[in-house]
Amino acid sequence: MFFHRQELQHSATPDAPDAVYARKLQEVLGGQYGEITVAMQYQFQAWNMHIPGKYRDLVFGIGAEEMGHVEMLAVMIAQLLEKSPLGITEDAVQSDPTVAAVIGGTDIQQGIVAGAGARPVDSNGNPWMGSYITASGNLLADFTANANAEMQGRVQVARLYHMTDDHGVLDLLSFLLARDTMHQNQWLAAAEELKAEGAETLPVPSNFPLKKEAREVSYQYLNFSDGAAAAEGSWASGPTPDGHGEFTYHDGPTTTSPMPPPTHPDSRFYGTTELPNVVEKVAGAAQDALRKE
Amino acid sequence: MFFHRQELQHSATPDAPDAVYARKLQEVLGGQYGEITVAMQYQFQAWNMHIPGKYRDLVFGIGAEEMGHVEMLAVMIAQLLEKSPLGITEDAVQSDPTVAAVIGGTDIQQGIVAGAGARPVDSNGNPWMGSYITASGNLLADFTANANAEMQGRVQVARLYHMTDDHGVLDLLSFLLARDTMHQNQWLAAAEELKAEGAETLPVPSNFPLKKEAREVSYQYLNFSDGAAAAEGSWASGPTPDGHGEFTYHDGPTTTSPMPPPTHPDSRFYGTTELPNVVEKVAGAAQDALRKE
Amino acid sequence: MFFHRQELQHSATPDAPDAVYARKLQEVLGGQYGEITVAMQYQFQAWNMHIPGKYRDLVFGIGAEEMGHVEMLAVMIAQLLEKSPLGITEDAVQSDPTVAAVIGGTDIQQGIVAGAGARPVDSNGNPWMGSYITASGNLLADFTANANAEMQGRVQVARLYHMTDDHGVLDLLSFLLARDTMHQNQWLAAAEELKAEGAETLPVPSNFPLKKEAREVSYQYLNFSDGAAAAEGSWASGPTPDGHGEFTYHDGPTTTSPMPPPTHPDSRFYGTTELPNVVEKVAGAAQDALRKE
Amino acid sequence: MFFHRQELQHSATPDAPDAVYARKLQEVLGGQYGEITVAMQYQFQAWNMHIPGKYRDLVFGIGAEEMGHVEMLAVMIAQLLEKSPLGITEDAVQSDPTVAAVIGGTDIQQGIVAGAGARPVDSNGNPWMGSYITASGNLLADFTANANAEMQGRVQVARLYHMTDDHGVLDLLSFLLARDTMHQNQWLAAAEELKAEGAETLPVPSNFPLKKEAREVSYQYLNFSDGAAAAEGSWASGPTPDGHGEFTYHDGPTTTSPMPPPTHPDSRFYGTTELPNVVEKVAGAAQDALRKE
Amino acid sequence: MFFHRQELQHSATPDAPDAVYARKLQEVLGGQYGEITVAMQYQFQAWNMHIPGKYRDLVFGIGAEEMGHVEMLAVMIAQLLEKSPLGITEDAVQSDPTVAAVIGGTDIQQGIVAGAGARPVDSNGNPWMGSYITASGNLLADFTANANAEMQGRVQVARLYHMTDDHGVLDLLSFLLARDTMHQNQWLAAAEELKAEGAETLPVPSNFPLKKEAREVSYQYLNFSDGAAAAEGSWASGPTPDGHGEFTYHDGPTTTSPMPPPTHPDSRFYGTTELPNVVEKVAGAAQDALRKE
Amino acid sequence: MFFHRQELQHSATPDAPDAVYARKLQEVLGGQYGEITVAMQYQFQAWNMHIPGKYRDLVFGIGAEEMGHVEMLAVMIAQLLEKSPLGITEDAVQSDPTVAAVIGGTDIQQGIVAGAGARPVDSNGNPWMGSYITASGNLLADFTANANAEMQGRVQVARLYHMTDDHGVLDLLSFLLARDTMHQNQWLAAAEELKAEGAETLPVPSNFPLKKEAREVSYQYLNFSDGAAAAEGSWASGPTPDGHGEFTYHDGPTTTSPMPPPTHPDSRFYGTTELPNVVEKVAGAAQDALRKE
Repeated sequence: MFFHRQELQHSATPDAPDAVYARKLQEVLGGQYGEITVAMQYQFQAWNMHIPGKYRDLVFGIGAEEMGHVEMLAVMIAQLLEKSPLGITEDAVQSDPTVAAVIGGTDIQQGIVAGAGARPVDSNGNPWMGSYITASGNLLADFTANANAEMQGRVQVARLYHMTDDHGVLDLLSFLLARDTMHQNQWLAAAEELKAEGAETLPVPSNFPLKKEAREVSYQYLNFSDGAAAAEGSWASGPTPDGHGEFTYHDGPTTTSPMPPPTHPDSRFYGTTELPNVVEKVAGAAQDALRKE
Repeated sequence: MFFHRQELQHSATPDAPDAVYARKLQEVLGGQYGEITVAMQYQFQAWNMHIPGKYRDLVFGIGAEEMGHVEMLAVMIAQLLEKSPLGITEDAVQSDPTVAAVIGGTDIQQGIVAGAGARPVDSNGNPWMGSYITASGNLLADFTANANAEMQGRVQVARLYHMTDDHGVLDLLSFLLARDTMHQNQWLAAAEELKAEGAETLPVPSNFPLKKEAREVSYQYLNFSDGAAAAEGSWASGPTPDGHGEFTYHDGPTTTSPMPPPTHPDSRFYGTTELPNVVEKVAGAAQDALRKE
Repeated sequence: MFFHRQELQHSATPDAPDAVYARKLQEVLGGQYGEITVAMQYQFQAWNMHIPGKYRDLVFGIGAEEMGHVEMLAVMIAQLLEKSPLGITEDAVQSDPTVAAVIGGTDIQQGIVAGAGARPVDSNGNPWMGSYITASGNLLADFTANANAEMQGRVQVARLYHMTDDHGVLDLLSFLLARDTMHQNQWLAAAEELKAEGAETLPVPSNFPLKKEAREVSYQYLNFSDGAAAAEGSWASGPTPDGHGEFTYHDGPTTTSPMPPPTHPDSRFYGTTELPNVVEKVAGAAQDALRKE
Repeated sequence: MFFHRQELQHSATPDAPDAVYARKLQEVLGGQYGEITVAMQYQFQAWNMHIPGKYRDLVFGIGAEEMGHVEMLAVMIAQLLEKSPLGITEDAVQSDPTVAAVIGGTDIQQGIVAGAGARPVDSNGNPWMGSYITASGNLLADFTANANAEMQGRVQVARLYHMTDDHGVLDLLSFLLARDTMHQNQWLAAAEELKAEGAETLPVPSNFPLKKEAREVSYQYLNFSDGAAAAEGSWASGPTPDGHGEFTYHDGPTTTSPMPPPTHPDSRFYGTTELPNVVEKVAGAAQDALRKE
Repeated sequence: MFFHRQELQHSATPDAPDAVYARKLQEVLGGQYGEITVAMQYQFQAWNMHIPGKYRDLVFGIGAEEMGHVEMLAVMIAQLLEKSPLGITEDAVQSDPTVAAVIGGTDIQQGIVAGAGARPVDSNGNPWMGSYITASGNLLADFTANANAEMQGRVQVARLYHMTDDHGVLDLLSFLLARDTMHQNQWLAAAEELKAEGAETLPVPSNFPLKKEAREVSYQYLNFSDGAAAAEGSWASGPTPDGHGEFTYHDGPTTTSPMPPPTHPDSRFYGTTELPNVVEKVAGAAQDALRKE
Repeated sequence: MFFHRQELQHSATPDAPDAVYARKLQEVLGGQYGEITVAMQYQFQAWNMHIPGKYRDLVFGIGAEEMGHVEMLAVMIAQLLEKSPLGITEDAVQSDPTVAAVIGGTDIQQGIVAGAGARPVDSNGNPWMGSYITASGNLLADFTANANAEMQGRVQVARLYHMTDDHGVLDLLSFLLARDTMHQNQWLAAAEELKAEGAETLPVPSNFPLKKEAREVSYQYLNFSDGAAAAEGSWASGPTPDGHGEFTYHDGPTTTSPMPPPTHPDSRFYGTTELPNVVEKVAGAAQDALRKE
């Protein structure tokens, strides 16, 4: 169960409205790596998790915080839009070039659809989608997904930090940056703890029998491009992070197999085929007959 | 530039057709973590990368291999569909219950749309989307995204491994599992190398001045749920992976801020507001007048 | 801010696993009118609302409850999938036709992607989308949207009620049906209260000056089909619900206007146009010249 | 069957081209609550309706009118784009700031894709989607959906009314506003008629046996937020609109149930689980063996 | 304007319900090449067309017919679903394996969402999208798009023809096949007429000055794969269909250009770059200072 | 298998950055008819093709070239964004109106998400979708689809040609225009060759027995609009392109069928029906009883 309190975790009030920035902030609210994504991702991981205790408590504990981050951004966006111009272009341009520039940069749907409000979309107006989240039930994979989400999110907030000089907005962003720092650290720590406890190790999934994979190519770097420097990295020689092998470097594939012959599905799928088949002959005869009639 | 050779990296021929399995394989071809995703993801990372040399050669080198994996799966799927039944339900059921069960489990569009062929969709028929990929220009974030993609992909292939007993399919899956093992290891190695070289460290992005974030909450675990075990993990005490702090544990938020008052945008957005405003009065007068006429 | 408690509002445990039903339940979790929709819809209405007090408290108060409904369904689905068969078709069919039928009816991604878990998608696997929600800032419009959402939702749960005989599932559905009854009543009551208080009346938006609309067609029923019974309803004669007019009935349009002539945009858009224009002549000359060279 | 006449229901010609406004108008053509939505929604309701006569004639009668509204908007948009600038930014800015502002505010695809024409998308360029419509077969639910659609649509047109001063556009909008007024009234009248005739009453669906729902929570307002004013509304006390009960107010849930234990699906889904299971042991042994070789 | 008549162009009544087939028919109703696509495509082409007369009359004339085809399919689907089983799996399987097989093959949303009705989706449940249509304003391009749409549509209907033995369904399909035959012929005839009249010729767009393209590669077949037979076709030698050149065959590219150096955007985008830049140094100093405090 | 070479087919470097144009170029990279579409379309056609030899070699040969075109555009876009302004609106406007205009016209996600890089989306930010491609297995249909794709693509590039005066960009566009000229010619030549060889003729699919379609309407032009000029075209009289008939012209439909009666699905779908049925009576009684208690 979820309970709401009409308070925010941090102040979310801009110094002044800024409709162009209101659009930009939508990215970290409703984008691929916005707050809706992490809120939903952690909660679905909790609901699908197969072990009780600290890991499940962790995803439950952060998931609810992230819902509150969605709220702070939505409230901030509504305020940034408070004096959003309605926008008759010619008038605006003649009286004030700032307004003119604003018109092009705003999210039109924040006005027409939401009446100067936040929306569950990204900065280009794409609606948030359930396919943004990851919750596989494999915790080492999922915590790596979470670490990535917090990294991408913090990169985006850092970029947004330099696109405004509004102190109220910067204050909120500095808070979100700090929480992203925390969450990056936390998911990386949780991933290490999983490995240390042996609950899940590399390669993920660790309890799939390695013998069943084609071990001869498990540690080969196969360079399908012509960049010679690819051989210089730690991924081309030396021990592998999973502790089970040694990297080797190869130009191109080490294995090859002939392309199988084309398929010949049932002729009633009407694909184009090499030779006239029975149905075609029947059809041809029918059409000849038809033409004669 | 890309060059194609009419050979496969590994054999991709099933022992026998299996239309139900052909649908399942679509997941690792055109799903969120399918081969199209990694092929596109690595290539866009290459095109957007800001440094020449080993890292860019790496993403170029793997991106082209993944396009070949898309091809192996597509060719395999076409062969699995080769004797796909057209599917008149009642007839099928009466003569052969296996065929009846198959009907429900197939991807109908593989037949009606592709004529017994592979499609750029997942196992539920959702089209592959550009929003599945990640290419931010920040390499530590992106290599973490890549490690996650290879983990999720290997988990899915491992699940698919147990859903068939066709030796030809299992042979291909064992190859893909091994390459996923390689690629997991490789991206983790590359991420470590980035950190070791100082090109990018934690927290990502590492060159954003830490002083600008709200450092007082950068290492606080705030438990917004009531699971006590969340305090037991390495994310609740001890040094943080970024080397800059110590985790602390807190029940709920350590900061709070009052909810700002509701916004009052231009009345011509026609949101419902507390008090009748000027426009409303004008409108009311107009309607009164109208009614009197 | 949102706080999570590791308890459910109602028991959500099935008597037995049922992977086919687990797919069906996804509709009311992640479909157009599923619980994610109402949870998000009410919260965005709260964040965008322009008046404090009872209406905003109402949407906040229900929004958080709906997040708990998402949770109950997700937890139920995970349990319904607990013994989900991995699904090798031929084996299954030969040993147990029930299993064979199940294979076709399951959501393949609940297995391959989520490892036998719930997903933020509908019963056909379409991801939940931000475009499902409605939050316009106009409360009479939005509360009508909410009443509709609760009606559609209760219709879907009622349909699902007859698709299982599992007592645990039926018990949860009976609870959800009752809450949908409550929420239908509540939104209709709130809509009436808005009208009674004059905060918003018909037609929505009520403070747009009626004089500015083409009043002569404001109450005409125009029948663009040939069904004569359309004239029998209360929408074809008698007073209108907004209290401002009388319905009248008309076969087809009462107004008409000639189709404007086709447009002639800049020729460099290369649309096909009636007469060769200057650019075309230039191009033609250039091509002639080219051919002569 | 549908028949087209090359006339419009109302004049749809602007005084002058305005490419920025052409983008804004896309919202009420191809947005969530645009004319394509209502045209398709009413027609699918007609095709799926289970009763002949006045209600079906009604949805048929309006559905065809709405297709004509799509046409008026499309024709209007094409004319607004007639002199759409091709848009080389620097040149434009230096010669005419109006043109410069226009460039940012236009829908680029109206030019590049449609050659200065209308498109089946919203004002942010999102394609119209079939998931926007509602046609459940339950008429009280669907007519409530229709009333909402007409309300949201009229709110959006009212907002657009203030974003231009072109008399031709305003003339068309005044016509659309009037028709939206009619359609709001009509669907509300039809909903009342359904209830008066007993064809469908509250709660929807009305023929689901009330005894089968958990009646003890059917009329409880459960406040999951901390806004005290939520108790002041007519939804917190007094008789319910469905006529079957009395509202009561409660702070938070009146029922609770423990969270069920985590699930343990087949280990071959490779979710992370509490204790090493048999497969893991086998895998571990295999890996040990492998390492020894 | 559009007018509806409550008659169908052809009988659309099945001999008997068939819920599995009802799902398959959705493809040609709401799929990429279904009837909604062609209805919308032709109408948008009409609204965006720049010339009056026969071509515009043609797209108007067919567009309205296609809306009637949408209707026939929707009505057919509703009837195919008339006795759709509600579907309790175990019961069904034990009593009747046909019913069991049906369960897996149905579109669950036709039941739960539409109450046994048609929906604007394809056979996998993907909603119809505005991005399926093509209306560029260039008529030779668009009529080629239309010819393709009718070809793909007829292929799909032909495939569906063999998936049922219901005479009512086959009767409707035979009508649709004939109309698709007509429409294929018609669009090809219209394309030829455009070329004969010189309104638009090859290459499309024909009034773009050929001199402005890189003529040296305009007729080179560049084989980026290793299939030698590609040289055998009429595309590798001989005159080109546009009448302006001669095909030539080449193994691989005839031109090449070095990859440009990586980009170095503003460091505040926080991409990973080769060398520490000023901001990084500042940040490093700030972090050092922070650590010392 | 695919192999990458770190060279481009043509120079792809602009004279100067232009962030607004970088957004526009996304259309031909990731739009409906962008280079990703043709690259994927030709490759899926290759993988699904049922005949070896020249046609399959052709689609393989072009598919790989198109991947290289994706690369040239991505690299070009990254360079156009190199000096992309971060964009604080007010500052920008005051100092330089060009920058102000730019802000509105840029793709915000190229900055915030990709760090000044290319993305797999169109010019409005819609992600590329698998549903853009066509690969039916019927080669005459698919080659017509390909010809259309190259025509639409060339139209779009031609439009983009006039939206810049950057010589580097124009140079790349002139190359792409020439390759589109080639590919239009090539697919039309291939379609003719298919017909000449009899592998596939009109109407597509040509081996479906014509006798099974309703031949009486196969060549009737049915004008469902009131444009008289539709009778003037070659589609209204004279021989048909498929060589099997003669066109005839008709005002409106030549056939008609009564609308079937509404359906009556199982009452447990809770659709609104004409007469109270058994379940409703039971429900009514239950509710009466409930009210009495």
